[in-house]
Amino acid sequence: MNFSRATLKINPNILNMEYAVRGPIPKRAAELKRQGKKVISCNIGNPQALGQRPITYYRQVLSLVEEPSKIDRERRLKELFEESPHSPLREEDFISEHVLALSERLLEKTEHGLGAYTASQGFLFVREAIADFIDQRDECQRLQNPCSDPNDIFLTTGASDGARRVLNMLITDKKDGIMIPIPQYPLYSAALKLYGGVQVNYYPDEENDWALDRSALETSIAQAREDGVNVKAIVIINPGNPTGAILDQESLCEVIAFAKENNLAIIADEVYQENVYGAEFISAAKALGSEKEVPLFSLHSISKGFLGECGHRGGYFEVRNPPAIEGSEADFMDVLIKQASVNLCSNTAGQILTYLMVTAPDNGSPAYEQYDREKEEILADLYEKASMVREAFQDMDGVECFGKTGAMYLFPRLNKLPEGKTDFEYCMALLEETGLSTVNGSGFGQMEGTHHLRIAFLPPMEKLEEVLPKWIAFHNEYVNRGE
Amino acid sequence: MNFSRATLKINPNILNMEYAVRGPIPKRAAELKRQGKKVISCNIGNPQALGQRPITYYRQVLSLVEEPSKIDRERRLKELFEESPHSPLREEDFISEHVLALSERLLEKTEHGLGAYTASQGFLFVREAIADFIDQRDECQRLQNPCSDPNDIFLTTGASDGARRVLNMLITDKKDGIMIPIPQYPLYSAALKLYGGVQVNYYPDEENDWALDRSALETSIAQAREDGVNVKAIVIINPGNPTGAILDQESLCEVIAFAKENNLAIIADEVYQENVYGAEFISAAKALGSEKEVPLFSLHSISKGFLGECGHRGGYFEVRNPPAIEGSEADFMDVLIKQASVNLCSNTAGQILTYLMVTAPDNGSPAYEQYDREKEEILADLYEKASMVREAFQDMDGVECFGKTGAMYLFPRLNKLPEGKTDFEYCMALLEETGLSTVNGSGFGQMEGTHHLRIAFLPPMEKLEEVLPKWIAFHNEYVNRGE
Repeated sequence: MNFSRATLKINPNILNMEYAVRGPIPKRAAELKRQGKKVISCNIGNPQALGQRPITYYRQVLSLVEEPSKIDRERRLKELFEESPHSPLREEDFISEHVLALSERLLEKTEHGLGAYTASQGFLFVREAIADFIDQRDECQRLQNPCSDPNDIFLTTGASDGARRVLNMLITDKKDGIMIPIPQYPLYSAALKLYGGVQVNYYPDEENDWALDRSALETSIAQAREDGVNVKAIVIINPGNPTGAILDQESLCEVIAFAKENNLAIIADEVYQENVYGAEFISAAKALGSEKEVPLFSLHSISKGFLGECGHRGGYFEVRNPPAIEGSEADFMDVLIKQASVNLCSNTAGQILTYLMVTAPDNGSPAYEQYDREKEEILADLYEKASMVREAFQDMDGVECFGKTGAMYLFPRLNKLPEGKTDFEYCMALLEETGLSTVNGSGFGQMEGTHHLRIAFLPPMEKLEEVLPKWIAFHNEYVNRGE
Repeated sequence: MNFSRATLKINPNILNMEYAVRGPIPKRAAELKRQGKKVISCNIGNPQALGQRPITYYRQVLSLVEEPSKIDRERRLKELFEESPHSPLREEDFISEHVLALSERLLEKTEHGLGAYTASQGFLFVREAIADFIDQRDECQRLQNPCSDPNDIFLTTGASDGARRVLNMLITDKKDGIMIPIPQYPLYSAALKLYGGVQVNYYPDEENDWALDRSALETSIAQAREDGVNVKAIVIINPGNPTGAILDQESLCEVIAFAKENNLAIIADEVYQENVYGAEFISAAKALGSEKEVPLFSLHSISKGFLGECGHRGGYFEVRNPPAIEGSEADFMDVLIKQASVNLCSNTAGQILTYLMVTAPDNGSPAYEQYDREKEEILADLYEKASMVREAFQDMDGVECFGKTGAMYLFPRLNKLPEGKTDFEYCMALLEETGLSTVNGSGFGQMEGTHHLRIAFLPPMEKLEEVLPKWIAFHNEYVNRGE
């Protein structure tokens, strides 16, 4: 047939955007999988794809609020069995009254169940629960810090949706810049490309466990200003993605003082706050305390922690110290609500899971024991797997890994690579030869002249046990090639 | 305390965006509700908030895939009851084996259940089911038209997400324009503001049942070009929102011929395709047939039809005739996938509901009878309510309503308003005096000098019966004020 295919000019920001986490290496991994090769996907923080099981309690509740008639039926069934002493079913075969009553209460609070649009910001009762969770986590009463306000919380489609909304709001001009830590989660670089802002890199100190120090921040902003960039905000990722590093009080205070002095907002990506494995997580809101001059946007998600409910796309962001708007009488929160309203609302199942995330069952309630056991098992398992991978680094020529173990990732530095080889080539070869799918450090950004990779420590223990020796062998052969 | 609140310059596109469907009238309605006043929300197509019940079958499946252990338990329970002839439970108390087996099959196809991120475009098996649905709907075999390709389908967070993605992709410049029908769904005007493009209005012919005619399209594009606008695409909303009007084959062919001649892409918003109440829906893809030169993006959603699953935020868009990219070797579909990948994926519950929407249970299967009854009841009820509201217009001084009944809305023209009064003021007064929350025509755009309102015909019959006489009384008093 003879026809002229249409030609369109498309948005160059999208055309030029990069997103390594779903880039060429995972693409090649998918190809290998289709060819029947064994692939271990360590390129993305997607725990349930690697065998992590959802917390039973969450899914019991979700299942009941999706099909409310089940609540009464469950009660009727239970009664019947209780009346019949020879029933082959046991108490454990039934959903506890605690879960049934909670589901009923949640349904009532939703007013119309899960099928209706909610308020643009999300269900009010969910935002109230989030505010309580934040206040408890940050000990705001004991520290006499301001409380979290449900009106300043927005439920989102995962945390990335929140990050994108905030960045879209802040970037007004090609010369507007956002400071992001290098290495960074590529959502930030991609969103900056998309909205046409300038990515202003700052460099946490790798050998000092990725701590932030003031001079690195100063160097970065001074350079940006020299280039005519109007820096508007600084992103912190805590615990770090891809580094897994955990920020201490001192680093957080540095950032806040720096932001205040330079009139920056802070965007705190805290989606891995539960993934600290015994170390202490300090939120940016807690470190901010009663400071009123620094706008803060804190992000959280149901995709990480011990939940790993990535597919349900739930999350929220909280605003502290909303700024005045230059050149307008409009209220900043009203504009954020208007922005949210064009999305109508985030999905209700994700909102319910967010509620459950911020309201653990009471210690002593029938659901608690199983919930707590599952939670602790998942976190202990993650830490054990991280330690195993770290240990393997010991046997790899020229591999160093800095920082406390946090998040779901390790970001080892490859000090030794054959002449002219990049970490991208290393990761691609690693995939081809061992089936291990990781992401090259350059996908996140790294100090010039260094090489890294990011590995998510999520696969089942036995898979790691199988692949780590292969990796070690591959590594020591690869880096010594051509010697 | 003495502190200087931060001041920020924010994105003027967001600051200046408007979104009437969630604008001042619904805001005032919420206030009245908080004060304990009775409000009937007809401002938004949110059926389940107004008492429409979800289709039982959908929720049974969703509930089981959220909590897979229930599938086996259900089977065990059933067996036990079958063995005990004196059981007080009946067959109907159990979920049919058909639904259990389907849930099991779906779970298998998801590979990791609902908790993992899916492919950026969404589950492949869902996209395959969508492609089959489209092919059947459009009779592509009988008509020897090209088939739908699962690789050209993207699952989205409701249809609006898809509309936004496509617009964001097409708008590259302040002078890029998109033709939209007036009146239009304000998502389009808001997205155009957000992405910085030009809204190019075209005017379907109200008195000719909102049909499209070529000359209206020609006038619109000629004017835009005179203003230096580079028109890139035309949006059609079929059935119409807010008009409810249904496009016939002739109107669709006009648009396609027009798009071809002017090198435009078509964005076809078809979320109300099930809401045609006996009239025929013809998709843009079907009308396009084997035409290869016109890129087409078709949108669909689980929020409308007889599902009304707004809260679950599911939907998809399908691409036909992907264009070449001006000035780049990149493949258009690859760029769309990259764009999708930054969102990671749409929520899994919404994806499952999308699957269920496009795969009705087989006629004859145990789930079919109930499914079909519920579906027909919902659609009949909607049509009956639309007719009731239309009838009320007869008793209102100077109210005319054109077009076949489609979608969930009526968009009557208010030919008579007191001197100097706008439809916004009318709707606000209507809300204050009767509790009926509608949206003013100017929120959607309208031919200059005309006034309209949009009413969603969703409230329960008895509420409509109560409020319609009040509205008639209010109307006839209001429009004759000052005479």
